[in-house]
Amino acid sequence: MFKKILIANRGEIALRVIRTCKEMNIKTVAVYSTADAESLHVRFADEAVCIGPAPSSESYLKMSNIIAAAEITNADAIHPGYGFLAENAKFSNLCEEHGIKFIGASGQMIDQMGDKASAKATMIAAGVPCIPGSEGILESFEETERLAKEMGYPVMLKATAGGGGKGMRAVLTADALRDAWDSARQEAKAAFGNDGMYMEKLIEEPRHIEIQVVGDSFGKACHLSERDCSIQRRHQKLTEETPSPFMTDELREAMGQAAVKASEFIKYEGAGTVEFLVDKHRNFYFMEMNTRIQVEHPITEQVIDFDLIREQILVAAGVPISGKNYLPQLHSIECRINAEDPYNNFRPAPGKITTFHAPGGHGVRIDTHVYAGYSIPPNYDSMIAKLITTAQTREEAINKMKRALDEFVIEGVKTTIPFHRQLMDDKDYLSGNYTTKFMEDFKMKS
Amino acid sequence: MFKKILIANRGEIALRVIRTCKEMNIKTVAVYSTADAESLHVRFADEAVCIGPAPSSESYLKMSNIIAAAEITNADAIHPGYGFLAENAKFSNLCEEHGIKFIGASGQMIDQMGDKASAKATMIAAGVPCIPGSEGILESFEETERLAKEMGYPVMLKATAGGGGKGMRAVLTADALRDAWDSARQEAKAAFGNDGMYMEKLIEEPRHIEIQVVGDSFGKACHLSERDCSIQRRHQKLTEETPSPFMTDELREAMGQAAVKASEFIKYEGAGTVEFLVDKHRNFYFMEMNTRIQVEHPITEQVIDFDLIREQILVAAGVPISGKNYLPQLHSIECRINAEDPYNNFRPAPGKITTFHAPGGHGVRIDTHVYAGYSIPPNYDSMIAKLITTAQTREEAINKMKRALDEFVIEGVKTTIPFHRQLMDDKDYLSGNYTTKFMEDFKMKS
Repeated sequence: MFKKILIANRGEIALRVIRTCKEMNIKTVAVYSTADAESLHVRFADEAVCIGPAPSSESYLKMSNIIAAAEITNADAIHPGYGFLAENAKFSNLCEEHGIKFIGASGQMIDQMGDKASAKATMIAAGVPCIPGSEGILESFEETERLAKEMGYPVMLKATAGGGGKGMRAVLTADALRDAWDSARQEAKAAFGNDGMYMEKLIEEPRHIEIQVVGDSFGKACHLSERDCSIQRRHQKLTEETPSPFMTDELREAMGQAAVKASEFIKYEGAGTVEFLVDKHRNFYFMEMNTRIQVEHPITEQVIDFDLIREQILVAAGVPISGKNYLPQLHSIECRINAEDPYNNFRPAPGKITTFHAPGGHGVRIDTHVYAGYSIPPNYDSMIAKLITTAQTREEAINKMKRALDEFVIEGVKTTIPFHRQLMDDKDYLSGNYTTKFMEDFKMKS
Repeated sequence: MFKKILIANRGEIALRVIRTCKEMNIKTVAVYSTADAESLHVRFADEAVCIGPAPSSESYLKMSNIIAAAEITNADAIHPGYGFLAENAKFSNLCEEHGIKFIGASGQMIDQMGDKASAKATMIAAGVPCIPGSEGILESFEETERLAKEMGYPVMLKATAGGGGKGMRAVLTADALRDAWDSARQEAKAAFGNDGMYMEKLIEEPRHIEIQVVGDSFGKACHLSERDCSIQRRHQKLTEETPSPFMTDELREAMGQAAVKASEFIKYEGAGTVEFLVDKHRNFYFMEMNTRIQVEHPITEQVIDFDLIREQILVAAGVPISGKNYLPQLHSIECRINAEDPYNNFRPAPGKITTFHAPGGHGVRIDTHVYAGYSIPPNYDSMIAKLITTAQTREEAINKMKRALDEFVIEGVKTTIPFHRQLMDDKDYLSGNYTTKFMEDFKMKS
């Protein structure tokens, strides 16, 4: 087992990793920028090394400084958390070259899964369903017609040079294809001077449902069921839950198997997440694979009583997994508490926290690195806490979340607590009938 | 279901009850003394009524004020928490007379279980093992000899007027009885002017192990397994855990059955605890029954995922229990964080909390009513927080507790955090081989 792990990150995830290391009797090294000197991850690690000034590019992304910190402190492994260097193939390779175990995917695997085209090709080879689409630019209307028939309506025509919805057409039936083709090309030509088009199957009422996997160094993988992350704003997840209210036993079995198949096909090592889009007919399509721990990992831990960071460390140290899959025993919801103003378009609101009182009690978990008196630096992510409630049913978990949000007192900065509180009263959210489009229609009540 | 519950208590338990009420969509009324105006239970309840000045006798024990508060606010039930009026038969009856449901035992049941002699007689009638002993004063040496043989050695001779160990003798074999009898009587005569003696079976290496029960209004009861509360100082529990490291499946089955039998025999309604002493041979003896929620109830909630306050409310509202018993699925430990100085004989240390940072993350639960800036009134109990860790094994729960205690920052007052931290490194505690005598030998390291 590792003797000392350097955590190449900050904030709650750095603290999260330190906690598990302590519980495993592994020494820890924190790294920090000058903006984070007062941060709890610095306080609670066994050692701490300042690696540069506030801008990430000069500290948390500065590979040479982090490797130097690991060498100076004799750390035998590096946990990258999420973000920053967590999915940086060069950094993963650099660690290996320096004889330091990178607790994450190999450089080759990060490259393979990080590039969209290569990831999709790999998944198709593994037999995992991907969103059907044209390969490259459509040559003619006839080809488009044939392809659309093949993948089945509805389809989406998109201008290759497109953006902002221009040159984009949803085509629900074969009858409508000709008109859409002509008008989309015209529009694209006018807007971008380029009428090249490609086509994808249109995912109706899409939900973002991801499967947690763990693979070991012996080529074996297992899944830990799903997380529904459909509540997103500009592709930023706001709240997640497991089980997904849209899930069925059959779908979980199928998606779980696909995720395990994908992981074993690429001999994936470590904790990873296979993200799928699921349409209203419960067809699911591979979107991407994240080769790292996710922000929302605690809800999985809560419903199957499993420490994912511990598992990452064990697998990295060469311990084999049991191979069995895990099904949710409870219901868990996470709300990301960000220092943002939900009444003002979620504008980041850094500043000094003057009062901080976290909720507690039965079924409540808090992961946070902040405290009363802490100044949120403007340089990094605005997430300041994760509030997680767990109960036997979805309804109970929501009721627990409501009361926990009501108890949560943060003064000095604006936070997304009011957004989450309103979300927990939203009819569509309560019904569980929500898609990735949910936030487009959501309006804060004043 | 109740529409509004008044909580006749303060501190963490008042907050605990409010939390569950919120989750059940039941309105809450807090009562408070002038010393508690800034307390969180006041802030988080829907309504709050001041019931008098700081001394308990003029507020939290002032029945007429509490009943008046319930009537003014139209509360249809009162939850008494623990302590104060929780086991006061008169108050239970008073509630009933005013048409307010007392969420606890009936006055008659409190009397029956509150009086030691009557409780013991009831348990013997129910067939629950009690500590064998003489009935009243021993008439002669011959009677003593006969009785000792009957209950089996070792026995304990005790002066009826005794105290401070005076006139008390442990007698390990029949040979030693005569000498012990003579010397104990002599000592008692000299010390108290009264040489009356009684005798009890000596419980060797006693452990305090209690069984949580819930009974409904249909005469049915179930148990929720045990809590080991042997780590006590002057009969004050300091830390508790479940499962007990001393427990076996057979013993749990036997103790659980005895507790259910006891509860059903008296038609116990509500959540209760049957406390037993268990000797080194795993014989168990009834000590007393607590007809209320216990401070240490969260560890049971953690290992069987059950909200005991919710269950109290449901049962009080006439909902039947399922009847099945619950076995621990995990391991959970509670440390009572008191504002006391463990380096100075656990002397209470009230004062103002200047910094408060609670640990969090996977497997950590905090129940507390305090926060940075809170002044601990000197009038009440010194407990300021309960720190609970839960994991799959005892070793993991202990490791989690260590790291959580290391993270817990309370400044401004002295607390028992250092005691618990040292306890978690104690060889005998770690081995699980501890008895109620543990604290007699425990010394704080400086």
